[in-house]
Amino acid sequence: MTKLEMLYEGKAKKVYKTEVEDRYIVAYKDDATAFNGVKKGTIAEKGVVNNKMSALLFKLLEEKGIPTHFEKLLSDREMLVKAVKILPLEVIIRNVVAGSLAKRLGLEEGAVLKNTVLEFCYKNDELGDPMVNEDHILAVGLSTEDQLQTVRKYALKINEILCPFFLERGLKLIDFKLEFGIHEGKVILADEISPDTCRLWDAATNKKMDKDRFRRDLGDVEETYQEVLARL
Amino acid sequence: MTKLEMLYEGKAKKVYKTEVEDRYIVAYKDDATAFNGVKKGTIAEKGVVNNKMSALLFKLLEEKGIPTHFEKLLSDREMLVKAVKILPLEVIIRNVVAGSLAKRLGLEEGAVLKNTVLEFCYKNDELGDPMVNEDHILAVGLSTEDQLQTVRKYALKINEILCPFFLERGLKLIDFKLEFGIHEGKVILADEISPDTCRLWDAATNKKMDKDRFRRDLGDVEETYQEVLARL
Ligand SMILES: Nc1ncnc2c1ncn2[C@@H]1O[C@H](COP(=O)(O)OP(=O)(O)O)[C@@H](O)[C@H]1O
Ligand SMILES: Nc1ncnc2c1ncn2[C@@H]1O[C@H](COP(=O)(O)OP(=O)(O)O)[C@@H](O)[C@H]1O
Ligand SMILES: [Mg+2]
Ligand SMILES: [Mg+2]
Repeated sequence: MTKLEMLYEGKAKKVYKTEVEDRYIVAYKDDATAFNGVKKGTIAEKGVVNNKMSALLFKLLEEKGIPTHFEKLLSDREMLVKAVKILPLEVIIRNVVAGSLAKRLGLEEGAVLKNTVLEFCYKNDELGDPMVNEDHILAVGLSTEDQLQTVRKYALKINEILCPFFLERGLKLIDFKLEFGIHEGKVILADEISPDTCRLWDAATNKKMDKDRFRRDLGDVEETYQEVLARL
Repeated sequence: MTKLEMLYEGKAKKVYKTEVEDRYIVAYKDDATAFNGVKKGTIAEKGVVNNKMSALLFKLLEEKGIPTHFEKLLSDREMLVKAVKILPLEVIIRNVVAGSLAKRLGLEEGAVLKNTVLEFCYKNDELGDPMVNEDHILAVGLSTEDQLQTVRKYALKINEILCPFFLERGLKLIDFKLEFGIHEGKVILADEISPDTCRLWDAATNKKMDKDRFRRDLGDVEETYQEVLARL
């Protein structure tokens, strides 16, 4: 499989066409951004970590019955995926209060939630990825009702799979963001699952083992990305 | 029934105890605020309009099977109500895009929605009444699951009742905000329904007939409040 023209370059990855109509190559970059692009930097070897970690988790999820875009690893920074039409939704699952939820509700980071929280944001950089509810999604046609219910079901199941997986490796899955797309008319998991898109805290010490080290200038950024991958 | 000590003074109303344990007197003020209290003013006789309009609509809704806090009109500015424990939720129903939804989703005011939108905000002035979804509400205990489903059911039914009622009077119900409370263990509609809490557009001309005239300095504020009441 060879990279043909670049289709789009995002903040963390480049997506290339291939000679097969419905296969893309995703190339993971070291670029890091935060706060909707206001903070910019690089994290050395992040692309390698995120590519390998995503591959490993997509494989795990496929084995457990979640359809994903993952086809195979091509190199340290590249994977072959099914081409999808991305649903313009960021699907966030929260097990513990952190980040924007702490701010929104005036709660301490680390506070326990009575139940898992699923949030949707409209994936739109100009609007700052605003939170939306299911009525909004359907009212403006961001997805169909069927797609929405499938996304919800998969997201909750993914959380059920990933929480114990990470915990067995000494990491608490605090929250994470997923993107789904449509392939051959069906909803499948796309994008990435990495320390860029998950909050992971060390199970023993609560040390932040994710992109918050970059966002909040906590130091040891590169080392932490490597450490997460090493534990998996 | 006599007013005893004032329990609380809000931005638009004062709530007084009475000699009956579970009855309060609500006194409607002319004070007007907007943008979470940043803009302040008065609208002459607004208290009278909002008191009378709320009374009229609460009566209508009771007749149609919605339990409300309304007991009776006491004077131009005062009504007797059932004392409730207010659920800390602003329940917003939207039939047409306007206000914060236009901003959130980058849509034109007046754009049609494929379906009625129900939104919840956490009623908390310090946090700026942030939007929340049902998972948030349950995860932090803003209501129980049963209360939430009752609130949703009532809010949608209220919309079904109010839309044709206003339309027969030459007004389109664009969106509105409700508050519910708990009385004797049951969810009932509380607070007010007025041009402060509804967006109403003239059915023929789309002239704004509500608090947006104050928020956006459109003029004719007092006259418009009077005109809405006169049409009911
Ligand atoms: N299988 C796929 N098919 C098509 N597009 C994809 C696929 N997986 C991810 N994408 C998209 O690739 C783009 C680049 O990723 P990224 O750099 O993370 O972008 P962003 O700046 O939007 O976060 C994103 O728009 C993402 O949704
Ligand atoms: N039946 C009721 N029992 C108790 N409190 C009520 C009742 N109806 C309304 N309230 C509350 O009265 C307070 C005063 O109203 P308002 O001036 O509109 O306040 P706010 O500044 O919160 O908008 C609000 O907190 C409202 O929720
Ligand atoms: Mg991305
Ligand atoms: Mg009020």
